[in-house]
Amino acid sequence: MIKSFLMIGQSNMAGRGFLYDVPPIINERIQMLRNGRWQMMIEPVNYDRPVSGVSLAASFADAWCLKYPEDTIGLIPCAEGGSSLDNWVIDGELFQHAVSEAKFAMKHSKLTGILWHQGESDSADGKYKVYYDKLLVIVQALRDILNVPEIPLIIGGLGDFLGKTGFGQYCVEYERINDSLQKFAFEQANCYFVSAQGLTANPDGIHVNSLSQRYFGLRYFEAFDKKTQVLAPLSHEVELLDRLSARMHTPTELMFVKQMDFALGKISYETLINE
Amino acid sequence: MIKSFLMIGQSNMAGRGFLYDVPPIINERIQMLRNGRWQMMIEPVNYDRPVSGVSLAASFADAWCLKYPEDTIGLIPCAEGGSSLDNWVIDGELFQHAVSEAKFAMKHSKLTGILWHQGESDSADGKYKVYYDKLLVIVQALRDILNVPEIPLIIGGLGDFLGKTGFGQYCVEYERINDSLQKFAFEQANCYFVSAQGLTANPDGIHVNSLSQRYFGLRYFEAFDKKTQVLAPLSHEVELLDRLSARMHTPTELMFVKQMDFALGKISYETLINE
Repeated sequence: MIKSFLMIGQSNMAGRGFLYDVPPIINERIQMLRNGRWQMMIEPVNYDRPVSGVSLAASFADAWCLKYPEDTIGLIPCAEGGSSLDNWVIDGELFQHAVSEAKFAMKHSKLTGILWHQGESDSADGKYKVYYDKLLVIVQALRDILNVPEIPLIIGGLGDFLGKTGFGQYCVEYERINDSLQKFAFEQANCYFVSAQGLTANPDGIHVNSLSQRYFGLRYFEAFDKKTQVLAPLSHEVELLDRLSARMHTPTELMFVKQMDFALGKISYETLINE
Repeated sequence: MIKSFLMIGQSNMAGRGFLYDVPPIINERIQMLRNGRWQMMIEPVNYDRPVSGVSLAASFADAWCLKYPEDTIGLIPCAEGGSSLDNWVIDGELFQHAVSEAKFAMKHSKLTGILWHQGESDSADGKYKVYYDKLLVIVQALRDILNVPEIPLIIGGLGDFLGKTGFGQYCVEYERINDSLQKFAFEQANCYFVSAQGLTANPDGIHVNSLSQRYFGLRYFEAFDKKTQVLAPLSHEVELLDRLSARMHTPTELMFVKQMDFALGKISYETLINE
């Protein structure tokens, strides 16, 4: 059965890495939820905005597939760009919609983990003071409603590029949010923190860029797989990403790419059929 | 309150028109549903596949906005590429998910119409014989469950390019499906048929191309607005599309485009702020 993961939070969970800055991840053992059904994944997975792109979820899943050759991973995209923690209150649309999507996914998968990245929209005006308690209510409700009381929750930190330029300059208290996120992961059961140390941003100063999203996903996988706090870059993350990129594609994956090329008018029907 | 429209069916409702073959429709009075919330629309609206593109929904909504300057339109994208009528059975994921999405939309909109385009996947093996009865069950259930017993249903015909080339060549009985669709619209209350006459396809021989999707949307609007069967191209559809394309954008719309350009790294923060 598919092992599924709920993606929630704001834009850096949805993914804003530019699509053509890194090689695409094409893996027939990674699925994504669309219209309540599973289909083979391609980025953007979490299409909350027209500018959605590379997120951490694809390399998280790709790393999983490398280590566990029998598994198939399903991604449930429910992150919403710009959302504050208050937008995730349990009677709000984002929370309710994420629950609804997770329930569709759970009809044909085992919900295995929750991937959370959020906090930029709470990095000002002293909101860090109530972040921990608000997040606790949300996480407890999610685990209760979906009947997964012990499901692991992976929480990524905010990037050190915040507070400086572009839209990121308004996140002046991002370090206080990071403190809250890390404290939450250390104190709450089955929660693991993932450091954003060393990650770099798009020119907008707020969104993790494509290559950094790839590394971030590997760190999320490490946290999940080892059930450990990841407080610094992985010593093997560059090598691991190279290994993932070097994998030979299966015939199904090659045909998937050809069919997209055909649907987009890039190759002829004859070329498609002959290959 | 937003007037919302449920988009259901298969790929030609989702939209496969190439994105850059026609000018984008940027209209602050057209919204789309994402994560249970409304946001300003941009195509692709119905992101069921990575190759999703221009659909009929955008020009349908744009024509509505031109005629009714006080209205805001909301699009609820639930079409699924390749889906047969059997995939839309009422206890299946597609139907249930569409109901779920419609209910989220209805919290902050008035569900005003249902846009249906489907049939390519039923254009072989004698499936036309049971199409009418199966569709009736689906439509009645949808109106019942959403408590909109008299909501208009607009049903588009299949293109005459089918049955010939590419993936379209397998739709050998598309004319029989068209007969069923038209009969359905003529016999059932508050149903209107929209002819696909004269529309052209992508090189794949099955998907309505961008410009034809624009005209198709205008025909859907005509059917809805006049509560009439549209059995041929509109005499004014070329002129109407030109009028829509010529509309001056509002400051909000211009800023929307600039913010996308910034998020995609195409313009600098300084340029964004200065404009």
